[in-house]
Amino acid sequence: MSQATMTVIPKTMKAAVLTELKSPLIVAEITMPAQLEIGQVLVKIHFSGICGSQLGEIDGAKGEDKYLPHLLGHEASGTVTAIGPGVRHVRPGDRVVLHWRKGPGIEAEPPVYHWEGKRVNAGWVTTFNEYAVVSENRVTAIPADSNLEVAALFGCAVTTGFGVVQNNAKVQIGESVVVFGAGGIGLSIVQAASLVSAYPIIAVDMFDNKLQLATQMGATHIINSRNGDARQMILDITGNAGVDVFIDNTGQPAIIEMGYQITKPQGRVTLVGVPRKGSNINIYSLPLHFGKGLSGSHGGEANPQTDIPRYLGLFRNGKLPLTPLITDTYSLDEINTAVSDMRSGKIAGRCMISFDASAS
Amino acid sequence: MSQATMTVIPKTMKAAVLTELKSPLIVAEITMPAQLEIGQVLVKIHFSGICGSQLGEIDGAKGEDKYLPHLLGHEASGTVTAIGPGVRHVRPGDRVVLHWRKGPGIEAEPPVYHWEGKRVNAGWVTTFNEYAVVSENRVTAIPADSNLEVAALFGCAVTTGFGVVQNNAKVQIGESVVVFGAGGIGLSIVQAASLVSAYPIIAVDMFDNKLQLATQMGATHIINSRNGDARQMILDITGNAGVDVFIDNTGQPAIIEMGYQITKPQGRVTLVGVPRKGSNINIYSLPLHFGKGLSGSHGGEANPQTDIPRYLGLFRNGKLPLTPLITDTYSLDEINTAVSDMRSGKIAGRCMISFDASAS
Ligand SMILES: [Zn+2]
Ligand SMILES: [Zn+2]
Repeated sequence: MSQATMTVIPKTMKAAVLTELKSPLIVAEITMPAQLEIGQVLVKIHFSGICGSQLGEIDGAKGEDKYLPHLLGHEASGTVTAIGPGVRHVRPGDRVVLHWRKGPGIEAEPPVYHWEGKRVNAGWVTTFNEYAVVSENRVTAIPADSNLEVAALFGCAVTTGFGVVQNNAKVQIGESVVVFGAGGIGLSIVQAASLVSAYPIIAVDMFDNKLQLATQMGATHIINSRNGDARQMILDITGNAGVDVFIDNTGQPAIIEMGYQITKPQGRVTLVGVPRKGSNINIYSLPLHFGKGLSGSHGGEANPQTDIPRYLGLFRNGKLPLTPLITDTYSLDEINTAVSDMRSGKIAGRCMISFDASAS
Repeated sequence: MSQATMTVIPKTMKAAVLTELKSPLIVAEITMPAQLEIGQVLVKIHFSGICGSQLGEIDGAKGEDKYLPHLLGHEASGTVTAIGPGVRHVRPGDRVVLHWRKGPGIEAEPPVYHWEGKRVNAGWVTTFNEYAVVSENRVTAIPADSNLEVAALFGCAVTTGFGVVQNNAKVQIGESVVVFGAGGIGLSIVQAASLVSAYPIIAVDMFDNKLQLATQMGATHIINSRNGDARQMILDITGNAGVDVFIDNTGQPAIIEMGYQITKPQGRVTLVGVPRKGSNINIYSLPLHFGKGLSGSHGGEANPQTDIPRYLGLFRNGKLPLTPLITDTYSLDEINTAVSDMRSGKIAGRCMISFDASAS
């Protein structure tokens, strides 16, 4: 029905390439595909977040990586510069959020880039690159005058964190919540728990800078787990009856098991952090028969089409303080520094790659 | 198993009796039952709210009333002074919330009082009386040092309003909410919508004093429906895409039908106000196939056992401003004045009967 649109795709662009596990990314000028296929959208990236899952990809946390070399990143804002055949949900000129979850529209073939004569793979969306050829169903249009740095957060951190609280844990007014791990998504979980009036909201982490930011995001109590027995410190706050909701962002069995023990008989344990391969949890299952909940989150079961507009609306009306979440901004050339600063705990909140800066 | 407890039941007490529909209540000294039966609890009442449903009872909104003469009221705070055989959830001396929804414990036989030689009926709970013989499953213990005037609100207004938002409408962060009718329960709905970060929160009523209080409870926009076309004024605020959640507290077909029309295709209409007998709504059902929701609330599907402690905890930690909700306090002798002030719209928020005052 729809005709192939004339597109002007840049011949090359700068991108961060993962060529080998556990190695620095290589920032290189790579060759773009010559044309857009059905359902593909060409986006100029403005800001991209770096998410814990990219650190996992670099580390090979899931084992062997048969797609190497490949591009990375799944949370960004950008401007559509061209659309392939069949695309109906966005148009050239649209500001968009790029996200890894599916929205409406076509799921296109992932693009293929080239570098030094070799094929460079990419998924339906990548964002550590100046331009991205992405699937129509991985972009959501937003108003033209949106804050583009904040908009990038809607690609993963905020939509995941808010979804964990609303869709997975289903936190209710006045319930007690423990957020174990206050990284990018943990901080968004803290904020969502605050937005739905949980109390107390206990953030636990090993880094004081993250805990300080957690307080700004709405944590009513903070615990540095390096300073003692986190379990006892939590119970000192909630009382021995325990916790309504325990949210784990670490994937570590000992922490998950502790959370399972200290939740109330009708409480819920929500697993957000992905466990390492082969690291099992060991729990007594009887409480599951009598009302205790244990479930895993897949990106907060977020829905880009409905969630992004309502969160963005709240932000635009001044009711959603998101800018404090973005604590550090780097250029694409500095991406390996950004990655190592994330690993060391130096970055308290969300780390952004700014392409507008690196282009200047 | 449990032995009948020695109880000291006062011989008589002052109570408001409904003897005839559409007539003033008669405040009289009535005779108490001589002893507590299995599962009954004797409570000295401190504060009782007056709820719209008692106005409906006085009016005979549901038709003939075969229980006349009878006692009234279903939201209060009190102190347990004695317990009947089998009662295990409360003890003499406990401060309690009295509520009409079932909690754990025995559902006892309703008590029988007497007055001028006639039998006076009562339900499992009544509260327009100095003492009440209630079912164990209609009281929930609270900490001894709780604010007893605020605690009464947990019997109906707050638990219902909060439940409507959380259990029925399932309002999400950033969704738009219309609350049509800002009486006692409407104001609690507005507050709950605010506690879960809805936006905008549009309160509609015919009385400016209630709308002003709605603003204090968290409404971001207010509409006096006497000043023009409420439908158009709502769409002017939300945009023509419509409303995510429309909550009706009026039971009036024209308002429910309007709400059904202006909710988004994926929106929800939640019915809280009870319709008069025979007043039907007339709607096109096709949108129900494609994601629109229409459902009725039964007291917000609240759960006294879990809800009262978490709301009270939030209040005790200073995170839940409930005192502004209580705008007027009367003695039991003044109950007919209170009822007529409620009908005239003079009372902006929740109206309380204070027994501690009337006893002095
Ligand atoms: Zn992510
Ligand atoms: Zn009521």
